[in-house]
Amino acid sequence: MSLIAELPNAGLLKKVADAMKDLCKDVNFDCSEKGIQVQSMDSSHVALVSLNLKESAFTDFKCERPASLGMNVDSLTKILKMTSPNDSLKIRHQVDSDVVGFQCEGTDDRISEFELKLMQIESEHMEIPEQHYKVIAKMPSSEFQKICRDLKEFGETLQLSGSKEGLKFQVKGDIGSGNVLLKPRESEKPEEKVSLTIHEPVNATFALRYLVNFSKAAPLCGSVTLGLGPDAPLLVQYDLESEDKGHLKYYLAPKIEE
Amino acid sequence: MSLIAELPNAGLLKKVADAMKDLCKDVNFDCSEKGIQVQSMDSSHVALVSLNLKESAFTDFKCERPASLGMNVDSLTKILKMTSPNDSLKIRHQVDSDVVGFQCEGTDDRISEFELKLMQIESEHMEIPEQHYKVIAKMPSSEFQKICRDLKEFGETLQLSGSKEGLKFQVKGDIGSGNVLLKPRESEKPEEKVSLTIHEPVNATFALRYLVNFSKAAPLCGSVTLGLGPDAPLLVQYDLESEDKGHLKYYLAPKIEE
Amino acid sequence: MSLIAELPNAGLLKKVADAMKDLCKDVNFDCSEKGIQVQSMDSSHVALVSLNLKESAFTDFKCERPASLGMNVDSLTKILKMTSPNDSLKIRHQVDSDVVGFQCEGTDDRISEFELKLMQIESEHMEIPEQHYKVIAKMPSSEFQKICRDLKEFGETLQLSGSKEGLKFQVKGDIGSGNVLLKPRESEKPEEKVSLTIHEPVNATFALRYLVNFSKAAPLCGSVTLGLGPDAPLLVQYDLESEDKGHLKYYLAPKIEE
Repeated sequence: MSLIAELPNAGLLKKVADAMKDLCKDVNFDCSEKGIQVQSMDSSHVALVSLNLKESAFTDFKCERPASLGMNVDSLTKILKMTSPNDSLKIRHQVDSDVVGFQCEGTDDRISEFELKLMQIESEHMEIPEQHYKVIAKMPSSEFQKICRDLKEFGETLQLSGSKEGLKFQVKGDIGSGNVLLKPRESEKPEEKVSLTIHEPVNATFALRYLVNFSKAAPLCGSVTLGLGPDAPLLVQYDLESEDKGHLKYYLAPKIEE
Repeated sequence: MSLIAELPNAGLLKKVADAMKDLCKDVNFDCSEKGIQVQSMDSSHVALVSLNLKESAFTDFKCERPASLGMNVDSLTKILKMTSPNDSLKIRHQVDSDVVGFQCEGTDDRISEFELKLMQIESEHMEIPEQHYKVIAKMPSSEFQKICRDLKEFGETLQLSGSKEGLKFQVKGDIGSGNVLLKPRESEKPEEKVSLTIHEPVNATFALRYLVNFSKAAPLCGSVTLGLGPDAPLLVQYDLESEDKGHLKYYLAPKIEE
Repeated sequence: MSLIAELPNAGLLKKVADAMKDLCKDVNFDCSEKGIQVQSMDSSHVALVSLNLKESAFTDFKCERPASLGMNVDSLTKILKMTSPNDSLKIRHQVDSDVVGFQCEGTDDRISEFELKLMQIESEHMEIPEQHYKVIAKMPSSEFQKICRDLKEFGETLQLSGSKEGLKFQVKGDIGSGNVLLKPRESEKPEEKVSLTIHEPVNATFALRYLVNFSKAAPLCGSVTLGLGPDAPLLVQYDLESEDKGHLKYYLAPKIEE
């Protein structure tokens, strides 16, 4: 086996696949001793999805030789749909084999096994430079999802501005215009907190439909982090349940105003 | 500001808009010092919708000059979908302005604002004479909805008859015929009671699809009141949560039997 | 009345009709002093549905003269949709009448009545010989449904094999192959148990879409019994809530391997 990777909860990979499937069709799962990574442009080449599933997320992880396992995300979600969230999941791949094996075992003596055919996918690994965002906002992931979905009803383009006043989501459309203003909010539950770090006010516009897609990753983590810079892509980051298991990041280029 | 109107719960207006949207496309919200009223024929000019949202339903209500605010009901529901049921909602309109503003504030420091473009809608205000119905029935609004929906599966025309025996909903169709008989029913919960007042037996027929639409107003109030007269339109009335906040009334002309 | 049959819970007949409606369009309900029976091939003449609703399932049952009542299953489900699960249901039929009457009465003084037009349906009563299955498996009906639905995503043909190892559901498709292995499982709740009786290993293939349809009968009973023989049709049996009320059996011919 070139790769044996065992997750305690199949649910984690299921949520990851669900969060990618509306953006990416076929992706390479790059396996190395550090864990599993995915980097993929969305099919319209506007957004970038970057997954880092750290070796520490697994109860057992051995990767003898780095390998890129090309999978169809839809097929992967079909396989993971069969698992119960608390089933353990073993992923196996032998050097040069054209299939990857999934074995999932529940507490109830049911064992499911799948072999998924691998695909050759042209890989375009990009170096994403570490950004120093001028505005960093952390907010409940369900609230981010609701704001994006609701504003999508009014128009296509979101104007996002971070300032001392708060984080403002604005949209203009045929029937009128609307905005939602979010202010810092304390809460005992970390996932209900809103925290804002404003080094410098930023104002940028983005295509709402990508944000609606990103925000579907909400089941992964109770909170989401947004990073805004004046000329930088927007960062939308979800930790994988907890920070030390890794993260799923989305990047979206701003719309250039005409 | 010619109008400032503040509702303690945005949910009330949301339920009102939802209850109108399948019948009316564009309506005038007539604002006066008494509150907000809507009167509108449905788009096929068979049914009449009449809303009375009393001044007392608002925590704050100022209307300096009567105004008719023409809105698209679908656009209004999109705006109200953004509110949480317990958000407070402020409606604002300036004399001669062509937009109406909605500001909604939750307990969680999130402020949403919308400006909806107003429309010029030809108004046809009808005087609805106070009727003395021969049969008055009060029943659970959810039960009325279920009966209408279920009978709709069998045919298009409902025969509604009130008599000493009870209130009978009858329908005939291709696969057979069916009826539901409702008798007076006591209950500690007012919304589970069925009460019947029969001054004179009445028997009339109505197009079921309108009743199915009316019955969608069930979330507004636990009970619904039906008023039947021999040659009068059917009245279907929902209080707005409680009677003193106002009501939403539907009127439907009987089908003439051939 | 040639037939008066009263069920304490309309819900039972509702679940039976729901379990038949995706397979059979029009069926004969054969009434005799023993109860009500249905035997019908599915519309593509591959599967057989066999219902036995015993006289003991009824609180009141009189059948003076055997009769075949031909009904459209869809129309029947529309009628039964009107009942609440705990309503009592009276079925009535007069000799030579072309309608069958359903009267349902709730605890809340609501009485619903329906007359369904009967149909003439060509009856093809088959004698189903009692089989001695080589493999008999009893498992949770919800789990059987989930396995069938999930595997249906991967391919059309299910390979079912019972052996000492357990009961194995296997499917091969374009994206890969998968299998679920079920082992005997003890539980205090009878509906969560898995029990296997293997007289002889059996291995046969079936069209998954029929199994998906059969498995929709899960609401009838917490557990389902599968019977497998080397050259026999697969038996999928649900008791009607309990064994003494009767059962619903499905038979499916194996696919011949080319």
